[in-house]
Amino acid sequence: MRAAAISQPESRERILDAAEKMFRKHGYLKVTVKDIAVVLDMSPANVYRFFDSKASLREALADRLTRQVEAHCEKACAEGGTASARLEALITEYHRMTLDRYLSAENVHEMLDAAMRENWRVIDGHTERMRLLIGRVMEDGVKSGEFPLRDSAAAAEMVFFSIVAFIDPACVARLFKNEENFKHVRDMGRFLTAALRAGSI
Amino acid sequence: MRAAAISQPESRERILDAAEKMFRKHGYLKVTVKDIAVVLDMSPANVYRFFDSKASLREALADRLTRQVEAHCEKACAEGGTASARLEALITEYHRMTLDRYLSAENVHEMLDAAMRENWRVIDGHTERMRLLIGRVMEDGVKSGEFPLRDSAAAAEMVFFSIVAFIDPACVARLFKNEENFKHVRDMGRFLTAALRAGSI
Repeated sequence: MRAAAISQPESRERILDAAEKMFRKHGYLKVTVKDIAVVLDMSPANVYRFFDSKASLREALADRLTRQVEAHCEKACAEGGTASARLEALITEYHRMTLDRYLSAENVHEMLDAAMRENWRVIDGHTERMRLLIGRVMEDGVKSGEFPLRDSAAAAEMVFFSIVAFIDPACVARLFKNEENFKHVRDMGRFLTAALRAGSI
Repeated sequence: MRAAAISQPESRERILDAAEKMFRKHGYLKVTVKDIAVVLDMSPANVYRFFDSKASLREALADRLTRQVEAHCEKACAEGGTASARLEALITEYHRMTLDRYLSAENVHEMLDAAMRENWRVIDGHTERMRLLIGRVMEDGVKSGEFPLRDSAAAAEMVFFSIVAFIDPACVARLFKNEENFKHVRDMGRFLTAALRAGSI
Protein backbone atom coordinates (compact mmCIF):
# COMPACT_ATOMS: atom_id res chain seq x y z
CA MET A 1 0.00 0.00 0.00
CA ARG A 2 3.07 2.22 0.24
CA ALA A 3 3.00 3.30 -3.38
CA ALA A 4 -0.66 4.32 -3.18
CA ALA A 5 0.15 6.73 -0.38
CA ILE A 6 2.53 8.67 -2.62
CA SER A 7 0.92 11.32 -4.77
CA GLN A 8 1.17 11.09 -8.53
CA PRO A 9 3.33 14.20 -9.02
CA GLU A 10 5.68 12.91 -6.33
CA SER A 11 6.03 9.51 -8.02
CA ARG A 12 6.71 11.22 -11.31
CA GLU A 13 9.49 13.33 -9.78
CA ARG A 14 10.98 10.31 -8.00
CA ILE A 15 11.11 8.40 -11.27
CA LEU A 16 12.80 11.36 -12.97
CA ASP A 17 15.30 11.69 -10.11
CA ALA A 18 16.26 8.04 -10.38
CA ALA A 19 16.40 8.12 -14.18
CA GLU A 20 18.60 11.22 -14.18
CA LYS A 21 20.97 9.70 -11.64
CA MET A 22 21.29 6.48 -13.62
CA PHE A 23 21.59 8.14 -17.03
CA ARG A 24 24.30 10.41 -15.61
CA LYS A 25 26.19 7.49 -14.16
CA HIS A 26 25.84 4.81 -16.82
CA GLY A 27 24.73 6.67 -19.94
CA TYR A 28 21.28 6.72 -21.49
CA LEU A 29 21.82 3.74 -23.78
CA LYS A 30 22.93 1.34 -21.08
CA VAL A 31 20.04 1.98 -18.69
CA THR A 32 16.67 0.28 -19.20
CA VAL A 33 13.27 1.22 -17.79
CA LYS A 34 13.46 -2.03 -15.82
CA ASP A 35 16.76 -0.91 -14.21
CA ILE A 36 15.12 2.31 -13.11
CA ALA A 37 12.10 0.47 -11.72
CA VAL A 38 14.37 -1.87 -9.73
CA VAL A 39 16.21 1.03 -8.10
CA LEU A 40 12.86 2.58 -7.16
CA ASP A 41 11.50 -0.71 -5.86
CA MET A 42 8.53 -0.47 -8.21
CA SER A 43 7.33 -2.44 -11.22
CA PRO A 44 8.26 -1.35 -14.77
CA ALA A 45 4.48 -1.11 -15.37
CA ASN A 46 4.33 1.62 -12.76
CA VAL A 47 7.08 3.59 -14.52
CA TYR A 48 5.16 3.16 -17.78
CA ARG A 49 2.06 4.67 -16.10
CA PHE A 50 3.97 7.96 -16.09
CA PHE A 51 6.25 7.65 -19.11
CA ASP A 52 5.31 5.61 -22.13
CA SER A 53 8.89 4.96 -23.23
CA LYS A 54 12.50 5.52 -22.24
CA ALA A 55 12.57 8.30 -24.85
CA SER A 56 9.68 10.11 -23.13
CA LEU A 57 11.58 9.83 -19.83
CA ARG A 58 14.51 11.49 -21.55
CA GLU A 59 12.29 14.21 -22.98
CA ALA A 60 10.79 14.91 -19.54
CA LEU A 61 14.30 15.08 -18.05
CA ALA A 62 15.45 17.49 -20.74
CA ASP A 63 12.41 19.64 -20.03
CA ARG A 64 13.05 19.53 -16.28
CA LEU A 65 16.71 20.45 -16.75
CA THR A 66 15.84 23.45 -18.90
CA ARG A 67 13.36 24.62 -16.26
CA GLN A 68 16.03 24.36 -13.56
CA VAL A 69 18.30 26.49 -15.72
CA GLU A 70 15.47 29.02 -16.13
CA ALA A 71 14.77 29.14 -12.39
CA HIS A 72 18.43 29.89 -11.66
CA CYS A 73 18.56 32.59 -14.33
CA GLU A 74 15.37 34.15 -13.02
CA LYS A 75 16.82 34.24 -9.53
CA ALA A 76 20.10 35.74 -10.79
CA CYS A 77 18.32 38.69 -12.39
CA ALA A 78 15.72 39.18 -9.66
CA GLU A 79 18.19 40.88 -7.34
CA GLY A 80 18.07 44.65 -7.06
CA GLY A 81 20.30 46.83 -9.21
CA THR A 82 20.21 48.40 -12.60
CA ALA A 83 18.62 46.58 -15.53
CA SER A 84 22.13 46.36 -17.03
CA ALA A 85 23.54 44.67 -13.93
CA ARG A 86 20.58 42.28 -13.80
CA LEU A 87 20.86 41.40 -17.48
CA GLU A 88 24.60 40.82 -17.16
CA ALA A 89 23.96 38.57 -14.16
CA LEU A 90 21.32 36.66 -16.12
CA ILE A 91 23.68 36.08 -19.06
CA THR A 92 26.56 34.93 -16.86
CA GLU A 93 24.28 32.62 -14.89
CA TYR A 94 22.81 31.19 -18.10
CA HIS A 95 26.30 30.32 -19.29
CA ARG A 96 27.28 28.92 -15.89
CA MET A 97 24.17 26.73 -15.77
CA THR A 98 24.83 25.46 -19.30
CA LEU A 99 28.25 24.30 -18.16
CA ASP A 100 26.97 22.99 -14.86
CA ARG A 101 23.81 21.18 -15.89
CA TYR A 102 24.52 20.08 -19.40
CA LEU A 103 28.25 19.75 -19.74
CA SER A 104 29.45 18.64 -16.33
CA ALA A 105 29.06 14.99 -17.35
CA GLU A 106 29.59 13.56 -20.81
CA ASN A 107 26.54 11.32 -20.37
CA VAL A 108 24.22 14.24 -19.70
CA HIS A 109 25.46 16.10 -22.74
CA GLU A 110 24.84 13.07 -24.94
CA MET A 111 21.41 12.45 -23.48
CA LEU A 112 20.34 16.06 -23.89
CA ASP A 113 21.82 16.38 -27.31
CA ALA A 114 19.63 13.52 -28.52
CA ALA A 115 16.59 14.73 -26.59
CA MET A 116 16.92 18.19 -28.09
CA ARG A 117 17.41 16.96 -31.61
CA GLU A 118 14.31 14.81 -31.37
CA ASN A 119 12.10 17.09 -29.29
CA TRP A 120 11.93 20.52 -30.74
CA ARG A 121 9.18 21.53 -28.39
CA VAL A 122 11.41 21.09 -25.32
CA ILE A 123 14.03 23.42 -26.69
CA ASP A 124 11.49 25.75 -28.30
CA GLY A 125 9.63 26.09 -25.00
CA HIS A 126 12.86 26.83 -23.17
CA THR A 127 13.98 29.37 -25.77
CA GLU A 128 10.62 31.10 -25.62
CA ARG A 129 10.64 31.30 -21.79
CA MET A 130 14.21 32.62 -21.75
CA ARG A 131 13.36 35.27 -24.35
CA LEU A 132 10.43 36.36 -22.20
CA LEU A 133 12.66 36.56 -19.11
CA ILE A 134 15.26 38.61 -20.98
CA GLY A 135 12.42 40.75 -22.33
CA ARG A 136 11.09 41.45 -18.83
CA VAL A 137 14.46 42.75 -17.60
CA MET A 138 14.66 44.84 -20.74
CA GLU A 139 11.18 46.28 -20.19
CA ASP A 140 12.26 47.31 -16.67
CA GLY A 141 15.21 49.12 -18.23
CA VAL A 142 12.90 50.85 -20.69
CA LYS A 143 10.53 51.93 -17.90
CA SER A 144 13.36 53.32 -15.76
CA GLY A 145 14.81 55.13 -18.78
CA GLU A 146 18.00 53.10 -18.65
CA PHE A 147 17.44 51.49 -22.05
CA PRO A 148 15.98 53.99 -24.53
CA LEU A 149 14.78 51.23 -26.87
CA ARG A 150 12.30 51.62 -29.68
CA ASP A 151 11.41 47.92 -29.75
CA SER A 152 12.27 45.98 -26.63
CA ALA A 153 10.92 42.66 -27.96
CA ALA A 154 13.21 42.91 -30.98
CA ALA A 155 16.06 43.87 -28.67
CA ALA A 156 15.38 40.82 -26.48
CA GLU A 157 15.54 38.64 -29.57
CA MET A 158 18.88 40.17 -30.61
CA VAL A 159 20.28 39.66 -27.11
CA PHE A 160 19.18 36.04 -27.20
CA PHE A 161 20.77 35.42 -30.60
CA SER A 162 23.94 37.20 -29.44
CA ILE A 163 24.50 34.83 -26.55
CA VAL A 164 23.85 31.55 -28.39
CA ALA A 165 27.61 30.81 -28.38
CA PHE A 166 27.52 30.90 -24.58
CA ILE A 167 24.32 29.05 -23.85
CA ASP A 168 23.85 26.43 -26.55
CA PRO A 169 25.32 23.21 -25.14
CA ALA A 170 26.81 22.12 -28.47
CA CYS A 171 28.43 25.53 -29.03
CA VAL A 172 29.75 25.79 -25.50
CA ALA A 173 31.18 22.28 -25.74
CA ARG A 174 33.11 23.23 -28.86
CA LEU A 175 33.97 26.88 -28.28
CA PHE A 176 34.67 27.16 -24.59
CA LYS A 177 36.12 23.84 -23.61
CA ASN A 178 39.58 25.14 -22.91
CA GLU A 179 39.04 28.84 -22.65
CA GLU A 180 38.48 31.31 -19.90
CA ASN A 181 34.74 31.24 -20.34
CA PHE A 182 33.71 33.72 -17.78
CA LYS A 183 35.87 36.55 -19.03
CA HIS A 184 34.23 36.22 -22.45
CA VAL A 185 30.69 35.92 -21.20
CA ARG A 186 31.13 38.92 -18.88
CA ASP A 187 32.59 40.97 -21.72
CA MET A 188 29.60 39.97 -23.85
CA GLY A 189 27.16 41.00 -21.12
CA ARG A 190 28.84 44.40 -20.85
CA PHE A 191 28.94 44.84 -24.62
CA LEU A 192 25.25 44.08 -24.97
CA THR A 193 24.06 46.25 -22.08
CA ALA A 194 26.18 49.14 -23.34
CA ALA A 195 24.48 48.70 -26.72
CA LEU A 196 21.07 48.72 -25.04
CA ARG A 197 21.90 51.82 -22.99
CA ALA A 198 22.86 53.50 -26.27
CA GLY A 199 19.35 52.64 -27.45
CA SER A 200 20.63 51.10 -30.60
CA ILE A 201 17.45 49.20 -31.44
CA MET B 1 52.85 10.47 -69.47
CA ARG B 2 49.78 12.63 -69.27
CA ALA B 3 49.76 12.76 -65.49
CA ALA B 4 53.35 13.98 -65.39
CA ALA B 5 52.41 17.00 -67.46
CA ILE B 6 49.90 18.15 -64.84
CA SER B 7 51.36 20.23 -62.06
CA GLN B 8 51.14 19.04 -58.48
CA PRO B 9 48.85 21.83 -57.23
CA GLU B 10 46.55 21.22 -60.17
CA SER B 11 46.32 17.49 -59.44
CA ARG B 12 45.59 18.23 -55.83
CA GLU B 13 42.73 20.56 -56.75
CA ARG B 14 41.36 18.08 -59.29
CA ILE B 15 41.30 15.35 -56.66
CA LEU B 16 39.52 17.67 -54.23
CA ASP B 17 36.98 18.67 -56.90
CA ALA B 18 36.18 15.05 -57.65
CA ALA B 19 36.05 14.09 -53.96
CA GLU B 20 33.73 16.99 -53.14
CA LYS B 21 31.41 16.12 -56.01
CA MET B 22 31.24 12.48 -54.97
CA PHE B 23 30.89 13.13 -51.24
CA ARG B 24 28.08 15.59 -52.01
CA LYS B 25 26.30 13.10 -54.22
CA HIS B 26 26.78 9.81 -52.38
CA GLY B 27 27.83 10.79 -48.86
CA TYR B 28 31.28 10.55 -47.33
CA LEU B 29 30.88 7.05 -45.94
CA LYS B 30 29.86 5.42 -49.19
CA VAL B 31 32.70 6.82 -51.30
CA THR B 32 36.14 5.17 -51.27
CA VAL B 33 39.49 6.59 -52.33
CA LYS B 34 39.41 4.01 -55.11
CA ASP B 35 36.05 5.38 -56.38
CA ILE B 36 37.57 8.85 -56.56
CA ALA B 37 40.64 7.56 -58.38
CA VAL B 38 38.47 5.75 -60.95
CA VAL B 39 36.52 8.91 -61.74
CA LEU B 40 39.78 10.79 -62.20
CA ASP B 41 41.27 8.04 -64.34
CA MET B 42 44.24 7.76 -61.99
CA SER B 43 45.52 5.09 -59.62
CA PRO B 44 44.57 5.15 -55.92
CA ALA B 45 48.33 5.35 -55.26
CA ASN B 46 48.37 8.69 -57.03
CA VAL B 47 45.56 10.00 -54.82
CA TYR B 48 47.53 8.79 -51.79
CA ARG B 49 50.54 10.80 -52.98
CA PHE B 50 48.51 13.91 -52.10
CA PHE B 51 46.25 12.71 -49.29
CA ASP B 52 47.29 9.98 -46.93
CA SER B 53 43.73 8.91 -46.08
CA LYS B 54 40.09 9.57 -46.90
CA ALA B 55 39.94 11.55 -43.64
CA SER B 56 42.74 13.86 -44.77
CA LEU B 57 40.85 14.41 -48.04
CA ARG B 58 37.87 15.42 -45.94
CA GLU B 59 39.99 17.75 -43.83
CA ALA B 60 41.42 19.41 -46.93
CA LEU B 61 37.90 19.83 -48.33
CA ALA B 62 36.66 21.38 -45.10
CA ASP B 63 39.61 23.77 -45.18
CA ARG B 64 38.94 24.67 -48.81
CA LEU B 65 35.25 25.27 -48.12
CA THR B 66 36.01 27.61 -45.22
CA ARG B 67 38.43 29.56 -47.43
CA GLN B 68 35.75 29.92 -50.10
CA VAL B 69 33.40 31.30 -47.45
CA GLU B 70 36.11 33.73 -46.35
CA ALA B 71 36.78 34.90 -49.91
CA HIS B 72 33.09 35.68 -50.42
CA CYS B 73 32.87 37.52 -47.10
CA GLU B 74 35.99 39.53 -47.92
CA LYS B 75 34.48 40.53 -51.25
CA ALA B 76 31.16 41.46 -49.63
CA CYS B 77 32.82 43.93 -47.27
CA ALA B 78 35.37 45.28 -49.74
CA GLU B 79 32.81 47.44 -51.54
CA GLY B 80 32.72 51.16 -50.76
CA GLY B 81 30.44 52.54 -48.10
CA THR B 82 30.49 53.11 -44.39
CA ALA B 83 32.17 50.63 -42.07
CA SER B 84 28.68 49.86 -40.72
CA ALA B 85 27.34 49.00 -44.16
CA ARG B 86 30.39 46.89 -44.93
CA LEU B 87 30.19 45.02 -41.64
CA GLU B 88 26.48 44.38 -42.13
CA ALA B 89 27.20 43.07 -45.64
CA LEU B 90 29.93 40.82 -44.26
CA ILE B 91 27.62 39.35 -41.61
CA THR B 92 24.77 38.71 -44.06
CA GLU B 93 27.14 37.14 -46.57
CA TYR B 94 28.71 34.95 -43.88
CA HIS B 95 25.26 33.63 -43.00
CA ARG B 96 24.33 33.17 -46.65
CA MET B 97 27.53 31.25 -47.36
CA THR B 98 26.94 29.02 -44.33
CA LEU B 99 23.58 28.07 -45.77
CA ASP B 100 24.89 27.77 -49.29
CA ARG B 101 28.13 25.91 -48.78
CA TYR B 102 27.49 23.83 -45.72
CA LEU B 103 23.77 23.25 -45.52
CA SER B 104 22.62 23.08 -49.11
CA ALA B 105 23.15 19.31 -49.12
CA GLU B 106 22.70 16.97 -46.18
CA ASN B 107 25.83 15.07 -47.22
CA VAL B 108 28.04 18.15 -47.04
CA HIS B 109 26.75 19.04 -43.62
CA GLU B 110 27.51 15.57 -42.32
CA MET B 111 30.94 15.53 -43.87
CA LEU B 112 31.87 18.93 -42.49
CA ASP B 113 30.39 18.23 -39.11
CA ALA B 114 32.71 15.24 -38.73
CA ALA B 115 35.68 17.07 -40.24
CA MET B 116 35.23 19.97 -37.87
CA ARG B 117 34.81 17.81 -34.82
CA GLU B 118 38.00 15.95 -35.63
CA ASN B 119 40.08 18.80 -36.98
CA TRP B 120 40.12 21.70 -34.62
CA ARG B 121 42.83 23.43 -36.60
CA VAL B 122 40.58 23.76 -39.67
CA ILE B 123 37.86 25.50 -37.73
CA ASP B 124 40.33 27.40 -35.52
CA GLY B 125 42.13 28.72 -38.59
CA HIS B 126 38.87 29.80 -40.17
CA THR B 127 37.65 31.48 -36.98
CA GLU B 128 40.93 33.34 -36.62
CA ARG B 129 40.87 34.58 -40.23
CA MET B 130 37.24 35.70 -39.93
CA ARG B 131 38.00 37.57 -36.71
CA LEU B 132 40.86 39.34 -38.45
CA LEU B 133 38.60 40.27 -41.38
CA ILE B 134 35.93 41.64 -39.02
CA GLY B 135 38.68 43.44 -37.12
CA ARG B 136 39.95 45.12 -40.29
CA VAL B 137 36.52 46.57 -41.12
CA MET B 138 36.24 47.69 -37.52
CA GLU B 139 39.64 49.39 -37.65
CA ASP B 140 38.50 51.30 -40.75
CA GLY B 141 35.48 52.48 -38.76
CA VAL B 142 37.75 53.57 -35.91
CA LYS B 143 40.04 55.48 -38.29
CA SER B 144 37.14 57.28 -39.95
CA GLY B 145 35.62 58.13 -36.57
CA GLU B 146 32.52 56.06 -37.27
CA PHE B 147 33.19 53.59 -34.45
CA PRO B 148 34.54 55.39 -31.36
CA LEU B 149 35.86 52.14 -29.85
CA ARG B 150 38.36 51.85 -27.04
CA ASP B 151 39.41 48.31 -27.99
CA SER B 152 38.62 47.28 -31.54
CA ALA B 153 40.14 43.79 -31.17
CA ALA B 154 37.86 43.10 -28.20
CA ALA B 155 34.94 44.51 -30.18
CA ALA B 156 35.74 42.23 -33.13
CA GLU B 157 35.71 39.28 -30.75
CA MET B 158 32.30 40.30 -29.36
CA VAL B 159 30.90 40.71 -32.87
CA PHE B 160 32.18 37.27 -33.78
CA PHE B 161 30.62 35.67 -30.70
CA SER B 162 27.37 37.54 -31.35
CA ILE B 163 26.91 36.04 -34.77
CA VAL B 164 27.70 32.42 -33.91
CA ALA B 165 23.99 31.54 -34.14
CA PHE B 166 24.04 32.67 -37.78
CA ILE B 167 27.33 31.24 -38.97
CA ASP B 168 27.92 28.01 -37.08
CA PRO B 169 26.59 25.24 -39.36
CA ALA B 170 25.17 23.21 -36.46
CA CYS B 171 23.42 26.26 -34.98
CA VAL B 172 22.06 27.40 -38.31
CA ALA B 173 20.78 23.92 -39.07
CA ARG B 174 18.83 23.88 -35.81
CA LEU B 175 17.80 27.50 -35.36
CA PHE B 176 17.08 28.75 -38.85
CA LYS B 177 15.79 25.76 -40.73
CA ASN B 178 12.27 27.05 -41.12
CA GLU B 179 12.63 30.71 -40.35
CA GLU B 180 13.06 33.87 -42.27
CA ASN B 181 16.80 33.87 -41.80
CA PHE B 182 17.70 37.01 -43.58
CA LYS B 183 15.42 39.26 -41.61
CA HIS B 184 17.10 38.08 -38.40
CA VAL B 185 20.63 38.30 -39.66
CA ARG B 186 20.04 41.81 -41.07
CA ASP B 187 18.51 42.91 -37.76
CA MET B 188 21.55 41.50 -36.00
CA GLY B 189 23.93 43.35 -38.31
CA ARG B 190 22.11 46.62 -37.64
CA PHE B 191 21.99 45.99 -33.90
CA LEU B 192 25.74 45.33 -33.75
CA THR B 193 26.79 48.25 -35.91
CA ALA B 194 24.55 50.60 -33.91
CA ALA B 195 26.29 49.31 -30.77
CA LEU B 196 29.68 49.95 -32.36
CA ARG B 197 28.71 53.45 -33.47
CA ALA B 198 27.69 54.12 -29.88
CA GLY B 199 31.26 53.14 -28.94
CA SER B 200 30.06 50.70 -26.35
CA ILE B 201 33.32 48.80 -26.04
